[in-house]
Amino acid sequence: MSSPSFNTVSLIRKKREKNPLTEDEIHYLIQSYTEGDIPDYQMSAFLMASFLNGLNTEEAAALTDSMLHSGIVVDLSETPGTKVDKHSTGGVGDKLSLILAPIVASCGVPVPMISGRGLGHTGGTLDKLESIPGFSVDMDLDRYKEIINKHNLVLAGQTEEIAPADKLLYALRDVTATVESIPLIAGSIMSKKLAEGIDALVLDVKFGSGAFMKTREEATELAKTLVGIGEQFGKRTIAYLTNMEQPLGNAVGNWLEVKESIDCLHGNGPKDVMEITHLLAGTMIYLGKKADSVEEGIEKSKNSVEDESAFQKWVDIVEEQGGDISVIKDPEKYEPAEFQEEVTSDKEGFITEMDAFAMGMVSVEIGAGRREKEDNVDPKAGFILHKKIGERIEAGETFATIYTNKEETIHAAKAGMVDAISVEKKAPKPLNLITHRVDKNGVHDFRA
Amino acid sequence: MSSPSFNTVSLIRKKREKNPLTEDEIHYLIQSYTEGDIPDYQMSAFLMASFLNGLNTEEAAALTDSMLHSGIVVDLSETPGTKVDKHSTGGVGDKLSLILAPIVASCGVPVPMISGRGLGHTGGTLDKLESIPGFSVDMDLDRYKEIINKHNLVLAGQTEEIAPADKLLYALRDVTATVESIPLIAGSIMSKKLAEGIDALVLDVKFGSGAFMKTREEATELAKTLVGIGEQFGKRTIAYLTNMEQPLGNAVGNWLEVKESIDCLHGNGPKDVMEITHLLAGTMIYLGKKADSVEEGIEKSKNSVEDESAFQKWVDIVEEQGGDISVIKDPEKYEPAEFQEEVTSDKEGFITEMDAFAMGMVSVEIGAGRREKEDNVDPKAGFILHKKIGERIEAGETFATIYTNKEETIHAAKAGMVDAISVEKKAPKPLNLITHRVDKNGVHDFRA
Repeated sequence: MSSPSFNTVSLIRKKREKNPLTEDEIHYLIQSYTEGDIPDYQMSAFLMASFLNGLNTEEAAALTDSMLHSGIVVDLSETPGTKVDKHSTGGVGDKLSLILAPIVASCGVPVPMISGRGLGHTGGTLDKLESIPGFSVDMDLDRYKEIINKHNLVLAGQTEEIAPADKLLYALRDVTATVESIPLIAGSIMSKKLAEGIDALVLDVKFGSGAFMKTREEATELAKTLVGIGEQFGKRTIAYLTNMEQPLGNAVGNWLEVKESIDCLHGNGPKDVMEITHLLAGTMIYLGKKADSVEEGIEKSKNSVEDESAFQKWVDIVEEQGGDISVIKDPEKYEPAEFQEEVTSDKEGFITEMDAFAMGMVSVEIGAGRREKEDNVDPKAGFILHKKIGERIEAGETFATIYTNKEETIHAAKAGMVDAISVEKKAPKPLNLITHRVDKNGVHDFRA
Repeated sequence: MSSPSFNTVSLIRKKREKNPLTEDEIHYLIQSYTEGDIPDYQMSAFLMASFLNGLNTEEAAALTDSMLHSGIVVDLSETPGTKVDKHSTGGVGDKLSLILAPIVASCGVPVPMISGRGLGHTGGTLDKLESIPGFSVDMDLDRYKEIINKHNLVLAGQTEEIAPADKLLYALRDVTATVESIPLIAGSIMSKKLAEGIDALVLDVKFGSGAFMKTREEATELAKTLVGIGEQFGKRTIAYLTNMEQPLGNAVGNWLEVKESIDCLHGNGPKDVMEITHLLAGTMIYLGKKADSVEEGIEKSKNSVEDESAFQKWVDIVEEQGGDISVIKDPEKYEPAEFQEEVTSDKEGFITEMDAFAMGMVSVEIGAGRREKEDNVDPKAGFILHKKIGERIEAGETFATIYTNKEETIHAAKAGMVDAISVEKKAPKPLNLITHRVDKNGVHDFRA
């Protein structure tokens, strides 16, 4: 794309003075920055001004568009059907992609999924997929199209060709304290998702200690911005606000989560995981035009688990992408981590809190996650929760089992897990797992 | 100075979240930036956060202190007396330093004055001094001390050794739209003034079209910040808010302003110039402990003009610093600019406006100022005003004479001068030349 030329200092000043920039002005900034014609120090001043003075939906959409078109945009017009993906803002124990992708694909909706790696307290889908021996997420564009055409599903990793401007900007934001800006976060997410070749998108926007958005208010704002951008691009976009105060499901850690996903696909998943999975999958099936309503989509999602067609899709895609299907068919064959340590409660009562952030950080310590981008992850490390918020526990009773290959981390990890839970005499109020739906018509209370 | 180490991103985030930084934190940022350990892109994010969220007086003082101590701080403790300087925030036709410095020095108060060059619509004292053939503002520290000890006066140019951190920061602010921030401006001014070795400071903070602060509110805020910083450093600091809606005096342009200053020192200066000069000089004499009140200082200032002791001081300092005193003694000896063009009014009535900014830009076009730092200035270029706001003018009557060596600029310059004035049937209300005094006790209405 070619943009008219502007004076960079004037554009920074315009944002500094709280005036909205035009689409052309934003294109100029992002394109010139990506091409090295605007130096980092001007872009970081612009980012800080944008952080503090905000970007409206049109500006966020223009930013997304500029970043999107800084790289390749996959054209899946020759793949029949309405292509739908899901994106989650990330949480602890969030393995939903591994379950809903085969469900939705098995219901006839093509799912082109490009995922990222984990950083900090949250895991990443790529790391989970790569815990399956042989599974490859690296492929060229032809192979990407070949796989989705064959299976209605492809599970790929981000390449340098997808939204390179976003990579540059993210690296700069990281070192200039401009990460936690809703329009900048939304632009980063949407530029990568729109590059996949999707027609519609379902978003799982998480809030709570284990999420990036700590409050529901921030999560609502992010969801509105994401939906606004998606709709500006002509993609049907529906978001749900979901609770991330405690880890999702029982398993945290790459292989342990794959294993739990297999249980889910066999119909033996934890209640919280399946509730969100079926809602997101049902919405994807609806947006993919294979159901007339989300409710009908949810029915189809449940049926695909019941009749094992989703599990079969999972086996097929793992095989297609080079993974060892013997461990998918029989997870007990997978060699576990060397050390397995039970963590017991020192109090009796009801579990009232399970700090997802603190538990996520324990998972990093024992090898399941990354402190820095360059760190390696141990596919076998993690933990299994045997109790969740609201359940009774006795003093001395086990509530978690830690899996690690780093013996030296066990002591601190056990203490960390104990510190992360609160046990009280009185049972807590039940958590609302899914609180709101956000779509082009606004924010809707989901419980109502 | 050695500072404890901090995490730069955390400090940017702290300012982004509107939290004040400690003195140590600001020292760390400025020192590390000056030493090249903090990259431009982090400093520019910090500057934009500071621009938008502000810096309190303590932070501005810490910033000043860090910039001050990034270079040499002149020690004049061996020079007897209370050393006082004046700083103006800059305007069009502002030649006051050339008049008040010899006045104050002749009254026994040492004036160590380090000045800068002009940029944009405003001139700079150094350019005016250098229009005197032979006059040199370059000197080392020993010579600086020698001159002030001998004459109670020294007129020097900024060197690389004075507040190098300010130079680096200013260059970055210039390209990141972070110039017009009151605490950043105040820190920049005060770090350079405090490096001179002064004990007290008088500030002329200008407002109006020809000033950097367009409104009196902004000027008041700047004056308060400057006084706050000065007092934090233990220097008595008094500021006046003065009007810069029209050029000060009749002459604009380097030599033309020197010539007008000589008239002033002979007691033949324009009323507006002399009113502010005696107030600022009187305040300096008072702060320099050679008068018991500002009023007594003003009397002494007037006397030093009357008895020609100020003019003699001027001749002495020009001679000491290598200047040709023959043109000081007889300004008519100075070869004028090649072209002299009269500018006439096309209307009759009262002059109600004389846009100082527009006239300042005309002076740049005809050679008297700089568009870019690297430009040369023509010492002879400029203009003389024969009428000022409030005076009657006939259609076809001359209100200004342009002096230039660039013939090709005359046509546009004349048009620019005519555009810069408004002539109305009704006489305007008189301008308030000096509106407020700002000192450690607050803001005082000067007219009251």
